[in-house]
Formats: sequence, C-alpha cells, structure tokens
Amino acid sequence: MTDAEILLARCAELNRFSARPDGLERVYLSREHAQVNSRVAQWMAQAGLRTWQDAAGNQCGRREGRTPDLPALLLGSHLDTVPDAGSYDGMLGVLMAVAVAERLGDRVSELPFALEVIGFGDEEGTRFGTTLLGSRAVAGRWNEAWWDLRDRDGITLHRAFTDFGLDPTRVADAARAPEELVGYLEAHIEQGPHLEAADRSLGYVTTIAAARRFTLSILGEARHAGGTPYPRRRDALVGASEAITAVEHIARTCGCLATVGRIAVAPGAVNVVPGRADFSLDLRAATDEDRDAAWDMIRARIQDICSARGLRFEALEIHRAAATPCATWLRAAVASGIATTGDAEPLGLWSPAGHDAMAIGHVTDVGMLFVRCHDGISHHPSENVREIDVARGLDALENAVLAIAGERLRQ
Amino acid sequence: MTDAEILLARCAELNRFSARPDGLERVYLSREHAQVNSRVAQWMAQAGLRTWQDAAGNQCGRREGRTPDLPALLLGSHLDTVPDAGSYDGMLGVLMAVAVAERLGDRVSELPFALEVIGFGDEEGTRFGTTLLGSRAVAGRWNEAWWDLRDRDGITLHRAFTDFGLDPTRVADAARAPEELVGYLEAHIEQGPHLEAADRSLGYVTTIAAARRFTLSILGEARHAGGTPYPRRRDALVGASEAITAVEHIARTCGCLATVGRIAVAPGAVNVVPGRADFSLDLRAATDEDRDAAWDMIRARIQDICSARGLRFEALEIHRAAATPCATWLRAAVASGIATTGDAEPLGLWSPAGHDAMAIGHVTDVGMLFVRCHDGISHHPSENVREIDVARGLDALENAVLAIAGERLRQ
Repeated sequence: MTDAEILLARCAELNRFSARPDGLERVYLSREHAQVNSRVAQWMAQAGLRTWQDAAGNQCGRREGRTPDLPALLLGSHLDTVPDAGSYDGMLGVLMAVAVAERLGDRVSELPFALEVIGFGDEEGTRFGTTLLGSRAVAGRWNEAWWDLRDRDGITLHRAFTDFGLDPTRVADAARAPEELVGYLEAHIEQGPHLEAADRSLGYVTTIAAARRFTLSILGEARHAGGTPYPRRRDALVGASEAITAVEHIARTCGCLATVGRIAVAPGAVNVVPGRADFSLDLRAATDEDRDAAWDMIRARIQDICSARGLRFEALEIHRAAATPCATWLRAAVASGIATTGDAEPLGLWSPAGHDAMAIGHVTDVGMLFVRCHDGISHHPSENVREIDVARGLDALENAVLAIAGERLRQ
Repeated sequence: MTDAEILLARCAELNRFSARPDGLERVYLSREHAQVNSRVAQWMAQAGLRTWQDAAGNQCGRREGRTPDLPALLLGSHLDTVPDAGSYDGMLGVLMAVAVAERLGDRVSELPFALEVIGFGDEEGTRFGTTLLGSRAVAGRWNEAWWDLRDRDGITLHRAFTDFGLDPTRVADAARAPEELVGYLEAHIEQGPHLEAADRSLGYVTTIAAARRFTLSILGEARHAGGTPYPRRRDALVGASEAITAVEHIARTCGCLATVGRIAVAPGAVNVVPGRADFSLDLRAATDEDRDAAWDMIRARIQDICSARGLRFEALEIHRAAATPCATWLRAAVASGIATTGDAEPLGLWSPAGHDAMAIGHVTDVGMLFVRCHDGISHHPSENVREIDVARGLDALENAVLAIAGERLRQ
C-alpha cells in the first residue's frame, strides 16, 4: 500500500468512532473522542512520536530534533466532527501530519526543531456551540466563562471535562508559549470548489476569514391559529423568515457568506402561532471591516422587520474571530512544497472556513495547505478526496517541513 | 346569586377535575373525565333532566316535551380540555345548556320537542391526537381504526374504553339517528377578537371553517457554510423562509388563515447550510372553495420558489375537514335570541376554530352562539369571559330555544 492508500484507510477506520450507527458524529469530550485519541496515539507511536493527551483533551505527539527541547514545528488539525459528517474535514490533516512524521522518521533527529503533531479535540463547536475549544486551550486563550456552556443534554463543559477524566483546574497546562514553537502548519481539505475549478491538487492559504456568529431571537406572541386574525398576530416565525431571506440578500450584495443553519420555534404546535423563533447566524468575510459592515446592515434590516411586525429582536454574539493572515515565510514554504509536486505556480486562496490555525495564530506563525475535495462538498457524508491529491499533499507537506528546516539552517 | 354568577362559579368548580395541580388538563376517558361527568350529571338532575352516560362516555340529560319520545333539540358542547387550558372553552357551552334547561323548567313539557343536553367527552383530541371522538360517536361516524390509537403512555383507545367502564363493542349505541333529533345548538366562547372589537356580547355563527393541514418539506443540499459560495448553495431554510413569507401573503390576500407553527431543519448545525426543512401548514377558510384555492396558490408559489433555487418540494396532507354551514333556520333562531338581549342587528361570524357542531352536522342541522372572550385568548389559563356576556348569552340561548319551539308550533 502507498502512503496515500494507508492514509485513506485510516480516515475510513476513524468513521467507527461515532455517536451514531448510521453516520459520523464525534464531538468534544465524548466516548468517541477518547476512542479516536487512543487510535491516533497508536499511529503516532508507530511514527516514532512520544504521545500524550494534553490538559484540554487534545491528542499530542512529539519527536525531538537535533538537540532535546528545541522549539517545535507543530503539524495538525482536528479530530471532532459536525453531525452527519464526512471523513476528511480535520482528520485528513491530522493523519497527514502523522504520515509526514513517519516518512521523516529518523531524519527528524537532524532537524533544527522538534516535530510535534496534534489532533485537536474541538474545532467545530458541535457540542457546546463555541468553536476551537481545543486549539484555543493550546493558544492559551481559554475563557473561564466557557465552563458554564451546556450541551443539548444540559451537561456543562466543566462536568464534561471531569467526566472525560480531565481536571478543569489544570486546563492552562495545555497552553503553549510562543518560545516553545517555531510555527504551525495545517493541511485541510479545501471545503470549497476553487481548486477543482482551477484543476489543481493543492493550494496554499493566504488568509483565514474574519467571522462572527450570533444567536438571534425574535419574540412575538403565541396565539391560537384559528382564533387570531392577521392584524392581531405577532408571528415570530414569519418575522424570522423575512429576516433569513434578508440575511442572504445582504450577504450576496456585500460579497460575504452568511448562513442560518439552525432554527427553533416555540411553542412549536401545528395549531399555534409561534411566539418565539431562535436562529443562528454564521457570518464570514475576507476582512474584519467587510464582516462588520455586513452585520451592521443585517442587524438594522432585522430591526426594521421586527418593528414593522410588533416583534422584539435580540442578538447574542457567541463568536468573533479576526481574519488570520498566514505568515509570509510559511506561505512560501507551503508553496515550495506544492511546487515539488509538479505545480510550478501554486494557487493561493483565502479560506472562508475557519480552522484551528486561527486560534494557534495567537501564539505562533501559521501556514495552511489546502487539498482539493470533490465538488466543494464538506460537512456531509459524501465529502471526498482523490488518492492522487493526498499523495501530492503528503509530498508537499513533507517538503514544506524540509524547506522550513533548510531555511532555519541557512539563517 | 344570578344565573350567570352560578354558571361562572360552576366553571371555576370544574377546574378541580384536572390531571395537574398547577393548571387544567382534562382528557378523554381519564379519571377527571369520570369526575366531571358525575358533577355535571348532578346539575343536570337538578335542572330536571333524566341523566345517563352514553356508550362513548358523553354525559347526557333529557327532559320530555309535550308528548314522550319526541325528537330532541340537542344543546351542548365539550368537557375535555387542551393541556394548560382555560376554564371556558367547551365547559361554558355545556353549563349554559344546563342552565337554560333549568330556567325553562316545567315549560319544557309544553315544547314540541324533547330537550337534551350533552357534554362531549372529547373535542380537543388532546389524548389520542384525533379530535371530536365524543361528537363523532354521537354522529354515528366512529371509525374502527381508532381503537388502535395510543396515548403518550402507549394505552390504546380500546383499552381506555374498558378502563373507563365502557364496552367498545357497544360504541355504536351512542349514535343518534337523524329522526331522533330536531337540531343541535352549541354556545361557545368566540376564541377570537371580533366580538370584542365590534363591542358585542354575542354573535351567531354562519359557518365553521374548512380546514386542511400539511407537512411541507423543502429539500436542498447540506453544505459547509464557509466553503460553499452562493451560486453553489441549495439552502433549504432560505427556500422555506421565502415559502413561509409567501404563505402569509397569500392567506391575507385570500381572506384565509394559514399558520406555520412548526419547523425543523437538518442537519441543524450553526456552520452547515441546511439540506432539509420540514414545516407544518394549518389552513382555514370560510368555505371549502376558498380553502382549496388558497392551497393551490400556496403550492404553486412554493413550487416556483423551489424551482428558482434548485430545491425540491414535497407536501403531505395530514388532515382535511369540509366547512360546516350552520342551518339558516338555526342562524335565524340564534340571531333572534341575541336580539332579545338588546342587540338589534346581531353579528354573524365564521368560526376559524373547529367545534363539536362539525361532527353533529353530519346527523342533524346545527347552529352556534358565540360569547365574547377577553382579547381573543383561548387554549391558555388566562381565557376569560365577562359576567354580563354570560347573562346575555343565557337569555339568548333560552330565547333561541323558545323561538325554535314557536316556529315549529306555527308550522
């Protein structure tokens, strides 16, 4: 088997660690999370890495460079998924990092840095609604307020930590200092159609999108569906429907991406006018300024819709991320890695999707390698990658690591 | 105490017969149902009626007219409730019928028909999900398939019958033949704001709404919120939002009532474009034709929305009820009864809400008297009526009975 074949078989094997028999769902601090960490740790050990699970539940592995205790070049991505996920979003990057460590083998002991691999426990935020919990712990940006976040069963993040066997009082131990790190490189499926459209296997990332997320609530009055004529209705769902239509229109006009992925209405009976609608808003843009301008327009428009209908509007911001530029020297290293695969002029793309690199960018320089995926499909069971692209990705990532080493040796 | 004061005290007393200590919930064939039947039977007996519980658990009372075994004029409503109900929906009509029988007293023996009062055991359908079980038994429209309906504890309707002391094989004994009945008169709170807006205590019903209910589904494709540019999106929720906005617009234009009370999207993650949206549609109109014309417009409009967005549309009809017109001679009798209360030009309304009269309309002519309720609120603990309106309602219902008698004596 080729390295790419082995890697794809490993991705398929990880599908076993799922909360549901009919598809893939693996969330932070679940039983499946423990299982996937354990399996990945075996592969890390097989690649010659010393392994441990950090204080936030991230799976880590390390091999020393030419002297012990050198700062580390960190390679990785995440091991958690959205509900009914595909097999590659996150996992591909972790397993590519493990495979590159294995391919480098004893050569790691000649590198001017240690090599570390990390599989973050939470990037998607599926369980607690707040993303990047794993990578933010590593970046030293844990927020004490998160302990009270609850999952859909009412379990707090604090309780989930102890149930998982972690000590909440020690979460800061997961944090890495800037001087411990050389930089961070993440391989990831593109999750978009641009590489496929340009007929490329790989691309390097220029910048990761600015993002904000909100829980929006529209409050009206629950009334009998038969007994309440239109002038008396304050229908929260009709208001929310106008709002959701407006969100799409504004985002298209502004060149941003805005998505309403969740909605719930109360009381939720077939013969009762909804008194309340709660829905999510995920907003992404190339720059912080574009993002904030779009939100200002969305907020004003929903306020107008609600005023006209006698509804009340509330917005709770649950996530905000500034755009994360990839470091010039890491873009160059990734591009040079791609060039070794026969693509003389590698494509640079900005990433509308968020990545662990956004969090890690607070503590060290970051770079990203995108791998072409089928039809831009992600967050769906039909997510797919080609074996040839994975093979080229492994070559590119290995050569990027060697390029970084060569650059540092020259300095 | 006035008759209206007594009646309101009786409504309050019936709140005691509830499945929950913190509010009112009384469902078909429950312990509370047996208790309420027993208490109402006492009041019926006090009003001079011979009482019995019929083969479907409805509480009945009868006093003979000027000769024995004449066809009966049936007065009544229902004694069951929704969860967390108010005190008047149903009960007010039963207790008004009892009070009118008591006020007529010995004069019943001069009437050209027998007088019967009935308290139906199930109108709301709270327990078994199917409405009008009590009145449909009386109308001879029992469906053998209902025996397998289950409540939320898994108890079948068949089992509930035997637990209540009823014999399922004898349910047909509850059915009344058309020749046994003169007609049916039901008093009920309006459950809407029109009488209050028009500053009237009472109104007569012209017709009970035609209704249809659907589960509507819009199917797109679940895609990553970051990686999917707008031209590639097939967002089921944005499609559903346009549809819900259109539903309201079409219903208002057509003079119907259309309500979307439930919605669910899949996969339902904050960062995934929804691939599927399922929502309910409750449609009510004054006539079958209005209802069906509105549905045709709604269906065509949603189909257009979906075609434009590359979405698929499915509609599943889960309920259909024809409009029930109130008989002209019973409308006239109710209107003449209202006129005796000082309202020279009584208001006629169509009822968007369903009533037992819909079922009884299959076996005899029906008429309805609406009593003003506070702010149109129903199916809620704050449901309320004014004493003056109850007093006028009793006068109107008594005089409607006498008007029917006079009309029949003239013929």
